[in-house]
Amino acid sequence: MEPRKILLNEDEMPRQWYNILADIKINPPLGPDGTPLTPETLAPVFPMNLIEQEVSTDRWIDIPEPVLEVLAIWRPAPLVRARSLEKALGTPARIYYKNESLSPPGSHKPNTAVPQVYYNKVFGIERMTTETGAGQWGSALSFACAQFGMQCKVYMVRISFDQKPYRKAMMETWGGQCVASPSTETRAGREALERDPDTPGSLGIAISEAIEAAVADETGKTRYSLGSVLNHVMLHQTIIGLEAKRQFEKIGEYPDIIIGCAGGGSNFAGLAFPFVLDKINGKDIDIIPVEPAACPTLTKAPFVYDHGDTARYTPLLPMHSLGHAFIPPPIHTGGLRYHGMAPTVSQIVTEGIATPKAVTQIQALEAGVLAARTEGIIPAPETTHALACVVSEALKAKAEGKEKVIVFSWSGHGLLDLTAYEKFLSGQLTNYVLTDEEIERSERIFENFPKPTLLKSR
Amino acid sequence: MEPRKILLNEDEMPRQWYNILADIKINPPLGPDGTPLTPETLAPVFPMNLIEQEVSTDRWIDIPEPVLEVLAIWRPAPLVRARSLEKALGTPARIYYKNESLSPPGSHKPNTAVPQVYYNKVFGIERMTTETGAGQWGSALSFACAQFGMQCKVYMVRISFDQKPYRKAMMETWGGQCVASPSTETRAGREALERDPDTPGSLGIAISEAIEAAVADETGKTRYSLGSVLNHVMLHQTIIGLEAKRQFEKIGEYPDIIIGCAGGGSNFAGLAFPFVLDKINGKDIDIIPVEPAACPTLTKAPFVYDHGDTARYTPLLPMHSLGHAFIPPPIHTGGLRYHGMAPTVSQIVTEGIATPKAVTQIQALEAGVLAARTEGIIPAPETTHALACVVSEALKAKAEGKEKVIVFSWSGHGLLDLTAYEKFLSGQLTNYVLTDEEIERSERIFENFPKPTLLKSR
Repeated sequence: MEPRKILLNEDEMPRQWYNILADIKINPPLGPDGTPLTPETLAPVFPMNLIEQEVSTDRWIDIPEPVLEVLAIWRPAPLVRARSLEKALGTPARIYYKNESLSPPGSHKPNTAVPQVYYNKVFGIERMTTETGAGQWGSALSFACAQFGMQCKVYMVRISFDQKPYRKAMMETWGGQCVASPSTETRAGREALERDPDTPGSLGIAISEAIEAAVADETGKTRYSLGSVLNHVMLHQTIIGLEAKRQFEKIGEYPDIIIGCAGGGSNFAGLAFPFVLDKINGKDIDIIPVEPAACPTLTKAPFVYDHGDTARYTPLLPMHSLGHAFIPPPIHTGGLRYHGMAPTVSQIVTEGIATPKAVTQIQALEAGVLAARTEGIIPAPETTHALACVVSEALKAKAEGKEKVIVFSWSGHGLLDLTAYEKFLSGQLTNYVLTDEEIERSERIFENFPKPTLLKSR
Repeated sequence: MEPRKILLNEDEMPRQWYNILADIKINPPLGPDGTPLTPETLAPVFPMNLIEQEVSTDRWIDIPEPVLEVLAIWRPAPLVRARSLEKALGTPARIYYKNESLSPPGSHKPNTAVPQVYYNKVFGIERMTTETGAGQWGSALSFACAQFGMQCKVYMVRISFDQKPYRKAMMETWGGQCVASPSTETRAGREALERDPDTPGSLGIAISEAIEAAVADETGKTRYSLGSVLNHVMLHQTIIGLEAKRQFEKIGEYPDIIIGCAGGGSNFAGLAFPFVLDKINGKDIDIIPVEPAACPTLTKAPFVYDHGDTARYTPLLPMHSLGHAFIPPPIHTGGLRYHGMAPTVSQIVTEGIATPKAVTQIQALEAGVLAARTEGIIPAPETTHALACVVSEALKAKAEGKEKVIVFSWSGHGLLDLTAYEKFLSGQLTNYVLTDEEIERSERIFENFPKPTLLKSR
């Protein structure tokens, strides 16, 4: 019997994260006045040890022992050979995936929630605030806070809060607190409710609320946490790709194509960045972030300076963005409904190191159902976007008769997002594809913003 | 860093199941006329290869290669040292658990769903029917049927069907069909609806429907599948305990106390039976099945001959039973709401090899929340019953200053049963404890049934 899974023992877990900022340059974040931010400006929002990580250009950063101990609840994650999927597709390609669905909250998100909570804890912080869309990130942060005995407050986009009561119960089981956003607890929330008392909310508004709640705590013991986009978040996620490289070494294999779904970019970056290093050093590989056609940041939106949130509390970040006021169509993929994209991911796309693709939610769910029936795990709606691309690359390899090695990140399971499958299977799923006109309209918001420079890393 | 998990590689998976019928005697199943059943009588319901397994007394039975290949999607399951829970309890006990929550459906159930579907497939069957209460078993069978390209029809107890639409979506994603029971598709269903059009349904009625649907298929290509109670189901689950024994050998440890939750008995049996063999051979260990005080089959109900279903389609089985007409109180633990108990589990309790305990659902959920906040995984409501007993044994060890080694089965995660936690955390959970009077009343149903003999295995 050929093994399905390539396993690592706990003592084979990577002891350092890979920091892509040692190998690529990005435009600096800018303050409200358009000048580069100093780290100190961020101190009311994040603890200084994480800010230092955010701006570090060291290539390797040690993973603290207490972080490794918590990650070991589910890590190292198996690298799985998807033989049943290969067989169903009749492809000569060898398909592998990192199974990130095995964490207690069911996704890759705790890879950064755990170190973020740890660094806050050692900095003397007692309470964390954050936002959540579909609920994956809020669940992950609540889980991590329970591990370190920290308080956790989550602002959850109202439409998801109402549709997914299970997510709230999950966070509360771990001791977190969860309120619908916009709430009446913050100025940003109250203003949003004044504008529209029936608003479904948005990630942009929820981020504003969570930042405000952190900054407003006069004891100074509260900080904010973001689950994607920022450099230190990408850094923490590289444990996925670093493990994968060790696992490929064990079986004497190396991937030709690396695929990950991309909303804010952290899942994609986690798998891809350690391979980007190899590509910069000359390896001939394809690196593909996959996004929804309904929110096509990388494939359609311009590379600009934009805010990460609706109320414009965050600095200006250099990124592919549909505009901080953009509200994505109601696709069943909460984790990919974000107007922007991580600066580091935007940068490697700008440089042509990664080549993004967009898929519709029906293409994605089709691949998701095939994957569930072959590989067994029901993928998160986010993961199905990566799967749609995997299927198309595997069929291309079949048409060309090539033995390509494909690896992708199975970012999470879909057991708390089964409505997407229900709608798809009953033929009630709608496709949303953003038109060029809609994109042009959303772009006008940047007219008076500074423009990032086109940097070239090598 | 001390490792959390004791892992096995796929090539270390057990290649044989342990059959407890080589080491204990049980009363034979009886037909409607009160005489022992011949295997042939069961042929319309189960395929002959599984019936042979049901009556086998061979101690070791080979696990077929194609079954191992599917089990390898998530097995071997880690044996985890619950250091965080130990620390929270301040106990000198060393607590370990088998993590059965990592299977794609999220519980131990696929350990038997996979071989059952495989044996049906090689026997030429094309379609399986079954019942499900909370949904764990129906999900597991749908998952397994997808792996072998079989059709699957699940009769789901109406109250759960209405409360948990996600479960239906899950089964359908794997290609299964799921209808609410009682349905109008079967005579048993129609009769139940005539008696009470608004009935919430019961496991007993759903079993009757599923058996009837299998037997009624005139092509002979449909068979029924049961997720617990029967000997071959217990057999398949022993992979849990066999793996655990190998893992304990690796670290030079051996448990003093073995704990599992018990509804029909398969999760408990899966972990415990391989250790029962050692106990019969002289090992001094405590073996504890834990059941809900609301459905106290082992701790309160008599050892009798009873039917497994309400419509009395099943043979008479020797078991601890509250009566086939008994409808358990609406506790949040669908998997433990069953009137009977596996004959093999009933037998070892009758002989004093295992000593059952009952806990209330509030005790259980209290332990479940503690476990979620320390070990990280949100336990299935079923698992929380085992956890309540683990906590009490660990505190006893603390009071006595003894370094007991405790192992239990973490039978599944609770991500599809979070309502139980929501109710508990908001103080809305009610305790149900069955009174002696209620039990006496339910016992009258056995008055005219044959009585099992008190057998002694050694």
